[in-house]
Amino acid sequence: MHDLIISGGTIVTADACISSDIAIDRGKITKVEPGLRGAHQVLDATDRLVLPGGVDPHCHIEQMSGMGLMNADTFETATASAAIGGTTSLISFAAQPPGGRLRDAVEDYKMRAERGARIDHAFHVLIADPNVPNFEKDLTELVQEGHKSLKIFTTYNIGLDDKAILHILKLAKSTGALVCVHAENDALIKATTADLLAAGMTQPEHHALSHPRAAEVEAVARMCLFAKHLDQPVMLFHISTAEAVGVVKEARANGAPIWAETCPHYLFMTADILRQDGLDGAKFMCSPPQRTELDQAALWDGLTTGQLDLISSDHAPYRFDETGKLTAGLKARFDQIANGLPGLETRLPILFDAVRHSDRFTLQHFVEWTATAPARLYGLQGKGRIEPGYDADLVLWDQDRSVTYGANDLHDNVGYNPWEGRTVTGWPETVLQRGKVIVQNGELRAEPGQGKWLKRTLETHPTGHPAPERAAIVSSS
Amino acid sequence: MHDLIISGGTIVTADACISSDIAIDRGKITKVEPGLRGAHQVLDATDRLVLPGGVDPHCHIEQMSGMGLMNADTFETATASAAIGGTTSLISFAAQPPGGRLRDAVEDYKMRAERGARIDHAFHVLIADPNVPNFEKDLTELVQEGHKSLKIFTTYNIGLDDKAILHILKLAKSTGALVCVHAENDALIKATTADLLAAGMTQPEHHALSHPRAAEVEAVARMCLFAKHLDQPVMLFHISTAEAVGVVKEARANGAPIWAETCPHYLFMTADILRQDGLDGAKFMCSPPQRTELDQAALWDGLTTGQLDLISSDHAPYRFDETGKLTAGLKARFDQIANGLPGLETRLPILFDAVRHSDRFTLQHFVEWTATAPARLYGLQGKGRIEPGYDADLVLWDQDRSVTYGANDLHDNVGYNPWEGRTVTGWPETVLQRGKVIVQNGELRAEPGQGKWLKRTLETHPTGHPAPERAAIVSSS
Amino acid sequence: MHDLIISGGTIVTADACISSDIAIDRGKITKVEPGLRGAHQVLDATDRLVLPGGVDPHCHIEQMSGMGLMNADTFETATASAAIGGTTSLISFAAQPPGGRLRDAVEDYKMRAERGARIDHAFHVLIADPNVPNFEKDLTELVQEGHKSLKIFTTYNIGLDDKAILHILKLAKSTGALVCVHAENDALIKATTADLLAAGMTQPEHHALSHPRAAEVEAVARMCLFAKHLDQPVMLFHISTAEAVGVVKEARANGAPIWAETCPHYLFMTADILRQDGLDGAKFMCSPPQRTELDQAALWDGLTTGQLDLISSDHAPYRFDETGKLTAGLKARFDQIANGLPGLETRLPILFDAVRHSDRFTLQHFVEWTATAPARLYGLQGKGRIEPGYDADLVLWDQDRSVTYGANDLHDNVGYNPWEGRTVTGWPETVLQRGKVIVQNGELRAEPGQGKWLKRTLETHPTGHPAPERAAIVSSS
Amino acid sequence: MHDLIISGGTIVTADACISSDIAIDRGKITKVEPGLRGAHQVLDATDRLVLPGGVDPHCHIEQMSGMGLMNADTFETATASAAIGGTTSLISFAAQPPGGRLRDAVEDYKMRAERGARIDHAFHVLIADPNVPNFEKDLTELVQEGHKSLKIFTTYNIGLDDKAILHILKLAKSTGALVCVHAENDALIKATTADLLAAGMTQPEHHALSHPRAAEVEAVARMCLFAKHLDQPVMLFHISTAEAVGVVKEARANGAPIWAETCPHYLFMTADILRQDGLDGAKFMCSPPQRTELDQAALWDGLTTGQLDLISSDHAPYRFDETGKLTAGLKARFDQIANGLPGLETRLPILFDAVRHSDRFTLQHFVEWTATAPARLYGLQGKGRIEPGYDADLVLWDQDRSVTYGANDLHDNVGYNPWEGRTVTGWPETVLQRGKVIVQNGELRAEPGQGKWLKRTLETHPTGHPAPERAAIVSSS
Repeated sequence: MHDLIISGGTIVTADACISSDIAIDRGKITKVEPGLRGAHQVLDATDRLVLPGGVDPHCHIEQMSGMGLMNADTFETATASAAIGGTTSLISFAAQPPGGRLRDAVEDYKMRAERGARIDHAFHVLIADPNVPNFEKDLTELVQEGHKSLKIFTTYNIGLDDKAILHILKLAKSTGALVCVHAENDALIKATTADLLAAGMTQPEHHALSHPRAAEVEAVARMCLFAKHLDQPVMLFHISTAEAVGVVKEARANGAPIWAETCPHYLFMTADILRQDGLDGAKFMCSPPQRTELDQAALWDGLTTGQLDLISSDHAPYRFDETGKLTAGLKARFDQIANGLPGLETRLPILFDAVRHSDRFTLQHFVEWTATAPARLYGLQGKGRIEPGYDADLVLWDQDRSVTYGANDLHDNVGYNPWEGRTVTGWPETVLQRGKVIVQNGELRAEPGQGKWLKRTLETHPTGHPAPERAAIVSSS
Repeated sequence: MHDLIISGGTIVTADACISSDIAIDRGKITKVEPGLRGAHQVLDATDRLVLPGGVDPHCHIEQMSGMGLMNADTFETATASAAIGGTTSLISFAAQPPGGRLRDAVEDYKMRAERGARIDHAFHVLIADPNVPNFEKDLTELVQEGHKSLKIFTTYNIGLDDKAILHILKLAKSTGALVCVHAENDALIKATTADLLAAGMTQPEHHALSHPRAAEVEAVARMCLFAKHLDQPVMLFHISTAEAVGVVKEARANGAPIWAETCPHYLFMTADILRQDGLDGAKFMCSPPQRTELDQAALWDGLTTGQLDLISSDHAPYRFDETGKLTAGLKARFDQIANGLPGLETRLPILFDAVRHSDRFTLQHFVEWTATAPARLYGLQGKGRIEPGYDADLVLWDQDRSVTYGANDLHDNVGYNPWEGRTVTGWPETVLQRGKVIVQNGELRAEPGQGKWLKRTLETHPTGHPAPERAAIVSSS
Repeated sequence: MHDLIISGGTIVTADACISSDIAIDRGKITKVEPGLRGAHQVLDATDRLVLPGGVDPHCHIEQMSGMGLMNADTFETATASAAIGGTTSLISFAAQPPGGRLRDAVEDYKMRAERGARIDHAFHVLIADPNVPNFEKDLTELVQEGHKSLKIFTTYNIGLDDKAILHILKLAKSTGALVCVHAENDALIKATTADLLAAGMTQPEHHALSHPRAAEVEAVARMCLFAKHLDQPVMLFHISTAEAVGVVKEARANGAPIWAETCPHYLFMTADILRQDGLDGAKFMCSPPQRTELDQAALWDGLTTGQLDLISSDHAPYRFDETGKLTAGLKARFDQIANGLPGLETRLPILFDAVRHSDRFTLQHFVEWTATAPARLYGLQGKGRIEPGYDADLVLWDQDRSVTYGANDLHDNVGYNPWEGRTVTGWPETVLQRGKVIVQNGELRAEPGQGKWLKRTLETHPTGHPAPERAAIVSSS
Repeated sequence: MHDLIISGGTIVTADACISSDIAIDRGKITKVEPGLRGAHQVLDATDRLVLPGGVDPHCHIEQMSGMGLMNADTFETATASAAIGGTTSLISFAAQPPGGRLRDAVEDYKMRAERGARIDHAFHVLIADPNVPNFEKDLTELVQEGHKSLKIFTTYNIGLDDKAILHILKLAKSTGALVCVHAENDALIKATTADLLAAGMTQPEHHALSHPRAAEVEAVARMCLFAKHLDQPVMLFHISTAEAVGVVKEARANGAPIWAETCPHYLFMTADILRQDGLDGAKFMCSPPQRTELDQAALWDGLTTGQLDLISSDHAPYRFDETGKLTAGLKARFDQIANGLPGLETRLPILFDAVRHSDRFTLQHFVEWTATAPARLYGLQGKGRIEPGYDADLVLWDQDRSVTYGANDLHDNVGYNPWEGRTVTGWPETVLQRGKVIVQNGELRAEPGQGKWLKRTLETHPTGHPAPERAAIVSSS
């Protein structure tokens, strides 16, 4: 007798699409085959697509912004939003406060997530200040304990200079961690911002101009060269420009160990969205900013040809009021407005809909970009696939259900939906984590604290010549 | 009780290098772990490296040259030479004679190999003439029967024009075959050859000039565009120029399903070798010709960054006498001299030696390029790896033994060794096929006919976005 | 006393924009400076922009199509249309009939233009058949006589194979001619067309599918490689795809002597325009076909960065009736419909309007692309610039006048305007050729036969390292 | 009666090679034609090649090193060395001391050169510190006065950060100056140096390792992006790696206004030259360091295809004793040894010899790279060409004379010749400046102070689309 059988569904993975049942025991998938029988519980998936639960490897929760503003979500709210949107694992940031110890930061975040998180989770160790006592010791131990990714910035007040970046990359290499980078040239952004403000161009729409394309391209090129020089894998966060896709392509073709992501707001929005009445454009402000339709096309191309590996939300939740985006008041300049928009809940439906209505993409792409690739690249063991031995993190999609997003219908704590008015077809109806239903017909069934911290194991090189696929020496005994 | 245990060796695969024993039963590897005991037979591999047997996917045996000259080797001689050089599987050509049926050609070659071959083997179906009765029917059936690769030329008297090439590529797509191409622009070679002969430049050294770099680059670029346009995988044979490596890199980065190989004579020789007394340069003539040191560097770069996938021998055996290279007599012009040089026996020792003495490459690279990649890309099931379930095709290398090649010390039927005078360190001492010793301390123990034909199964796209690694849906029941 | 002074205008050239008068004597510009006085005649250019007359280096007049259909324009009608549109020099084709002598063809066209042409003109020698008596002799003499450009096709019934192309390129090199190429892969177009027709896809909109992007890219890449290999300058006609712009860029950066053009219908139309009721899409059919918005963007980029040198009309006039596009009747398949659309008269206003309303381009670009570059690259001495010594071929533009194109308002003999409904701002009001007014306030004043044939002188390499700008050794004596 | 006629020579320019006489009046070339007669003085150039005098746009004279060490040459010695080597114009540096005013630095250098220089000269304004009073004012005025180029570093103690670099680039744009950059990533060099020293790798040969290839590539890529973003021309000094040539090529193809140079020691030496007994390798130490043979090949390719514009000496003179390279004593670590080697005198003979013995290059290339291009790109009016109106700066070369360089045979004050033992064929026998013989049969005839400061005029964009060649509006009156 199995604990649970999901019967009659169509199973969609990054590789295939088949009709099959799934047996689940003690939270894990144990069989994937048709005609399964004998279970304490059966979940009928007739007319439903069964996909791996989404893995969102880039989101900000209970974190201070670069401007010192606490974001609007707690682990309770953020993970509720994620679950309802079909996401069952996420990686948020354990952010070192300047001057603070890495270990303290990580333990603090881990403890808060332990209390609040409704879904499984891990942390990128965000390095704000490498010049603190015990830095190398803490870093080494944390990586050994399973925190396998570091996050650094090249810009903002916590941006690191080349000396510090090279130091972090070397530490990562010696400890076996992946380094994630927000890559934009700081000086170029600052100089451009100063010019814009001096010219009286202070509106949200001018935010897009304040982050020149060259700022992204320069920092991306620099990180690719550093990664190649040191042979240290680097993940480039939120690629937004065609030129940066080109730089990544060239670097990877030259053997640089580079991964890269983009986000829905770069794939579906352009900088025009910042041009709204009053400060309304601020709802959509993020860094790097949305670009042009040509960039959108280049990003899709990059995903298709494998230059870009995955799509994250970069969920960065700030309310559109005086506690969030408008702390500086209603006459705020763009450089005083917090950057970021919510995305944990909308990432999957927006992309599912786009992929389904495309001649060019399939649901295999969707699963690869939103679940399988993030799990694999970030070392989330047991996540992102529907195979025996993997966690039973599953989503039953109703592919025919159409939903039009409203003004404030998300389950995070942000108070607006940047996709308001957009209709999507395809909806994550039922969500399971480790075999347990956490969303049923859209209703949340997950309690704070039931999500688990995920200890991670990284394989080495993403580009991985010449030994690409898997460990070859396995004993059969 | 195992049939055989190989004990005490150091096992080298494309991924790792470990100390372990290997158990073998009914010709297959059953365990790879230390401390194995209990076998009818034990082979002591102390102080030896144990590598997968070589897979040579490009060699000409019992085949007519483009000029109508039968090559010097039979399956008996060629496979003896291969085995002694550490190669346990090869793919040679089943060459359609112009006007002849494909099926007849394949059956003829298959029958001859059944009688003569001492090692395992398969065939590329060489298409000389698509305008024969039953062409599409034969092709489809042969691919279904496991002959999964086709070979076409863009030059020589059997070169196909674009119309025929596109037709073959479409047929390959519908049947699921890989298309291997000798890619050089025919008109450019012919026009240049005519100019050279008119100028009295008729020596072997002028052969190199008669195949301009642009001829290779053009045809390689064309095949990459066709492959991408039709989304049909293509293997580019014997890449020789830096520019062609660049074209492959660009094409793959754009998502074209392209694989490519090079050969030892492009990695270690330059066109200078054709400049010898009398016609002696003819011994080294091949097409495309050897190039420059800069090209050598680009080829190594291409192998390292994964633009080139493997290294084959392109063994093309002609004696340096009136039955071979000199059929046209001692006053032969370069265009009357058969192209090709022997390589089945020397491919592995030459490369082993080079890799061992390099700071840049490891034996993992060696195994990947000469065994694992060719087996994987050409669908040779059970070959190219040391893992339970794989055939026990193994080579025990004495990594300290140095050998200096002599004038006529190879076991093929060619009569000269193009590597005469070169000293290599590292020697394939003992060779097993399917668990049976076929070379013992350099002595051949393999009989004609004991090699098996290998029915092949191809996975799809080499470049493999987005579902790269393996089949995801496997039942554990 | 000057013959004529144009006073009070703003002079726009490829380099600058200044307020100045222009003095003209015996048809040539003699002074360009403010405050000129003393002339038999004064033309008031107050509030007008004075630009060099347009040079259109690619148009078909009195020429048979590849399908054997005579086009609709005579030199009388075509040059009337050109003049009214602001164009004062053109290069059309002297098309060799298959089997005919080159010299006969050129003399025939030259004689007909002598009678009919209202503006200055020259010819590309269109080579349909290199296997005729006296071919090399005729070609050499014609180039020596000043016919400095050859035209070849890689597709259509007059497409040449690689052998013939290489032969022509070598002849061009030895005689000092430029080779213009319609570059598309013939086999790919034919195979795709056959597939479409077999699938019942026969409408004008399917014409776009029948010319795959890869067909252009392949032939463009091939021509670039041949040009570089032989060091023979090549002009690539009507580039339409982003990928081809990329190939040109790479080739030029590698030192290949390549020039390239595009046309207004690739810059402003997409393949969607072929999708119309009935056969109406046929009005816009041309080869290569219009592509996508992304290609448009890439073409503009190519123009800006100098990968594309100029914009021609590729005027190819066929009436939309049974004497032209519809000769095959009202049930015609796309492959039976003549390719081409009229453009001599609209090229300049369409582009002027686009450039004026762009943040990115200036009228300097406009002049460079439509007059200065074509004159320089094709060796039209005395054309394309406003400088002393140059012909007084000038256009006074009313930059504020807006015109909306109607259904049949052009002065060629085609009977429809493909830009019907488009409003342009900026109009060529008055046109002078060699100091004589040939269009006055939009009214034609040029008689048939008053245009002169232009003997041409070519400078060498377009890419021209290391000695680019001009002849250095000039005596002052 | 002309002042001087140079008769019977073969005149070599960047464009052509012709037999002609040259007439000179008041220091300027007035006629270039055969059969000239009537002069106060005639210089017989029979059997001699007459070339423009060399223009060396990158040399250090009376300048402090980055380590605070004064270099060995004065204007007297450096310009003597230059003249004897065939160079008649040079640009050295007016180096701002940190904290000092730009104007003071320039006036000081100008005054010293006025006293000491034997040949014509100009200055790059070297910016060490933009945070001094009157910085913008001084800079603007100096550029207006004809000091048209600025020099900045991205590394060394005077290296500027991105903020300062962007500030300088914008100032240059507004004032119309060219910005020359020593582009290497500072942090990468410092981190690598620290690692090497920690590992006890302190010899001159380790200097090469301390400047990783990636350091050059990164900074070159960054400068290209900044130049393109701001549309401000940048000259990249001393390119040494193949990758950097590739970056320049890509940047120029994308329309970035980039120029680049290399130097003889990168074209003819590799890093192996640093591996010598004791500290002898220090004689050849420079930054960036010499690289590999593959880089040499890429640099030649870059020159041929126009990615690199010119060849300078980067003359940086330090004696090989305790006053120079060995100030830190005989146990110096590589990072305590001054970088640079002398080259003013050897640049032209070394290159002349190489070009003459090459199948690939001509003396036209030599003249372009060493005289015409530097004069044109740096705005040295009247220099670098043999045309009427240009200064009579000429060199009569004896193309058959062979010289083997000795240990200490140069006329600078350095005391060793890095090219010792190299034999060159081709020698600058007689040198004229503004019509006056300054070197006669190898003997110096130029007095200190007779060289003139050259006020410069810059044309705009080097890459120059779309208005490349010259000002179009010139009045003939």
